[in-house]
Amino acid sequence: MNIVKPSIPKGTRDFTPTEMMRRNYIFDTIRSIFYKHAYLPIETPSMENLSTLMGKYGEEGDRLLFKILNSGDFTQGVNFNDPEMSVNKLATKLCEKGLRYDLTVPFARFVVQHQNELTFPFKRYQMQPVWRADRPQKGRYREFYQCDADIIGSISLINEAELIEITDEIFSAFGIAVVMKINNRKILSGIAEVIGEPEQVTNLCIAMDKLDKIGQEAVCAEMMERGICESAIEKLKPIFEFSGKSNDEKLGLLSNLLADSEIGKKGIEEITTVLDYVKDMDLATELEIDITLARGLNYYTGAIFEVKAKDAAMGSISGGGRYDNLTGIFGLKNMSGVGISYGAERIYDVLNELNLFPAAILNPVKALFINFSAEDERYALSGLRAVRKAGISAEIYPDHVKIGKQMSYANSKSIPFVIMAGENERNNNTYTLKDMTTGEQCELTLDNIIEKLQ
Amino acid sequence: MNIVKPSIPKGTRDFTPTEMMRRNYIFDTIRSIFYKHAYLPIETPSMENLSTLMGKYGEEGDRLLFKILNSGDFTQGVNFNDPEMSVNKLATKLCEKGLRYDLTVPFARFVVQHQNELTFPFKRYQMQPVWRADRPQKGRYREFYQCDADIIGSISLINEAELIEITDEIFSAFGIAVVMKINNRKILSGIAEVIGEPEQVTNLCIAMDKLDKIGQEAVCAEMMERGICESAIEKLKPIFEFSGKSNDEKLGLLSNLLADSEIGKKGIEEITTVLDYVKDMDLATELEIDITLARGLNYYTGAIFEVKAKDAAMGSISGGGRYDNLTGIFGLKNMSGVGISYGAERIYDVLNELNLFPAAILNPVKALFINFSAEDERYALSGLRAVRKAGISAEIYPDHVKIGKQMSYANSKSIPFVIMAGENERNNNTYTLKDMTTGEQCELTLDNIIEKLQ
Repeated sequence: MNIVKPSIPKGTRDFTPTEMMRRNYIFDTIRSIFYKHAYLPIETPSMENLSTLMGKYGEEGDRLLFKILNSGDFTQGVNFNDPEMSVNKLATKLCEKGLRYDLTVPFARFVVQHQNELTFPFKRYQMQPVWRADRPQKGRYREFYQCDADIIGSISLINEAELIEITDEIFSAFGIAVVMKINNRKILSGIAEVIGEPEQVTNLCIAMDKLDKIGQEAVCAEMMERGICESAIEKLKPIFEFSGKSNDEKLGLLSNLLADSEIGKKGIEEITTVLDYVKDMDLATELEIDITLARGLNYYTGAIFEVKAKDAAMGSISGGGRYDNLTGIFGLKNMSGVGISYGAERIYDVLNELNLFPAAILNPVKALFINFSAEDERYALSGLRAVRKAGISAEIYPDHVKIGKQMSYANSKSIPFVIMAGENERNNNTYTLKDMTTGEQCELTLDNIIEKLQ
Repeated sequence: MNIVKPSIPKGTRDFTPTEMMRRNYIFDTIRSIFYKHAYLPIETPSMENLSTLMGKYGEEGDRLLFKILNSGDFTQGVNFNDPEMSVNKLATKLCEKGLRYDLTVPFARFVVQHQNELTFPFKRYQMQPVWRADRPQKGRYREFYQCDADIIGSISLINEAELIEITDEIFSAFGIAVVMKINNRKILSGIAEVIGEPEQVTNLCIAMDKLDKIGQEAVCAEMMERGICESAIEKLKPIFEFSGKSNDEKLGLLSNLLADSEIGKKGIEEITTVLDYVKDMDLATELEIDITLARGLNYYTGAIFEVKAKDAAMGSISGGGRYDNLTGIFGLKNMSGVGISYGAERIYDVLNELNLFPAAILNPVKALFINFSAEDERYALSGLRAVRKAGISAEIYPDHVKIGKQMSYANSKSIPFVIMAGENERNNNTYTLKDMTTGEQCELTLDNIIEKLQ
């Protein structure tokens, strides 16, 4: 057999125990908060039919789907010499399946496929990897996890408020100070309507988004370039004055601006109701109305959320919103839903940067029993069993090697305590516990050791 | 956009919340026991380079690998009209990557690739899906989970004993009575040696394995068919008498039989040492020496394990063994290891068949707050917040719909309690708790309700 130099595909990662412990801390924290709010888990297959995935993420998305070669004789019936055959078309001939690109489309597919088994409103969370054939770069991977919570089949704004509450609980648990920006698609539509440019919502948002960076004048210039007329831009004046204003002041300005837009007024009413629910919640999260926020514009129909860490240089670590027609693509109409997604990789980087991972999760193994000899081993093993029985993670060095080697094993694994027992301890029915941080050691009964390790 | 009738690839599955709760119970139980024994998690990418995977699982395995079409213009440099180009060869031209087929080869690759970052002996667990393009059938899926624990870089038989202990703890936690069969590859080699057929280990095992089913005579006939000579078979007599004997009796018979085989005697010594360690453990698991056990024969070099449920008609639900040269294929020699794998899907089926899933895991949501009206909603929400703050999973029906609909929502989700509050309760600072099983209801303070729900 040829020896293969081991490597993994670019854009993918191995996770060592240290990294896994940190990742699991993130997943476990998010999961327990989802649970408390009665969001229950589902999972969908890693592979979906390409017919489910294609055309859902735009042309770019189709290109970034990982496609799986059909099994068996995949060449059968494929005319490779067909001059009409583009690379993309050939791909769909060779591949029926692709890897999950996000959790949203599979969720929509799941809801429609299982609609008769589910109770609506249906609350679910889903934490699974997704795959994208993106060009790998710092912080961007070809396999990464998404953690999504959605409720579908309810138009109540209680749901929006609940997702804000969940977000607050999650980042409070992590100790990450965040600002959550909120917007409403209906307000954006209202603005486009009252300035007389109802078709220009997207261009409006793209330009407005740069206000902080390039200033009002440059933003106006860009709007004109994008075909928004001068008189329309003139009407946007109040919005240019949003910066630094409170949410109530912003809502006041918007009420004036959108007085003649039904959809705009609906948007203001929705955001007001959500903020009203949230008032009872005693949030640590700073909530900020940001009418330049427009994630997934073609997709959201009501609330739009985005979360950023205050103390870390990092893009959004969470985002979501309400969609009225997610399941329509699979034939199920009138299923309004609202959801939010947390990016595990980015939360990991923020926790790392701010040094917020709790020390306790990093050293799960509390003690190493030293293995002196075949003679002493049985006594060590009986101590080990008692320690584990008390629910403490511990191990014995399996081989009879020099003590120095066993000690450096404990050190390099950051195991905080080492437990030793020779003839002396056996006779006294004790063990010697060594604190690897201070170097102190003392002879103790097993009960005392268990107490110390707990 | 065309409407696509939703479906998933054959051999794959969606998991509803009920199924997920059961699956997570299995994973959480196994994980916590791995942790206690100081096995720490790693994860490897879903996609590996095909050069890592090909040739490791035999010809059949290569065929069953899911291969991922190269991104971009995958046709570049591929001559589809090359008459020498077989379908298999074409596949490797079109695909550089494949989906993980098991956790063992990626683990070996991981150990070699990260050898300078790891501390040996290295104990890891890994719970991830694997993919095989097998023909789907009952109980066989194209995406399924494996749960593996391995220790690598230690020759101590303490490790074998520990894996037996872990297995015992896992199945005791599940309440599944099991028998664990153990064997040793060296004993098999010894037997083949002493009967003068050192090359016939595989055929010997295949025939011996049928002893229970077809009887001694038919087994002997099959051995002769497989080219084992009559005088050799004659020497196997003591082994035909194993059935019903104790482990000690079997070891006695083997000691006589293998008195002239060094490797055979080593095997007996190993199995004796392991059983000796295990004596201190007070196991619920029945341990049975079974010299017909030969899983992964080309691969294991010492102990071989297999676990079956006593009370369910199901193949093995766990198996493993010692391998001396797992990492050799990636260029790292002298790394003996021993590992065991638990099949989540089969354990699920056994727990289901024997009705062993704990009731508590099936209904995680403990209470539904009824949503009477916009007026009552705030009071319900403040109660809900208090209940959740106490760590109890609960929810409010988000929309103002008829009480009957809200009640049937609770029923179809098997939520055990419903909590109601109107003007009366508001004035009394109470809530009415309804037990959905008995139908009883009583007016209580929030503290009393939290106490009841806990």
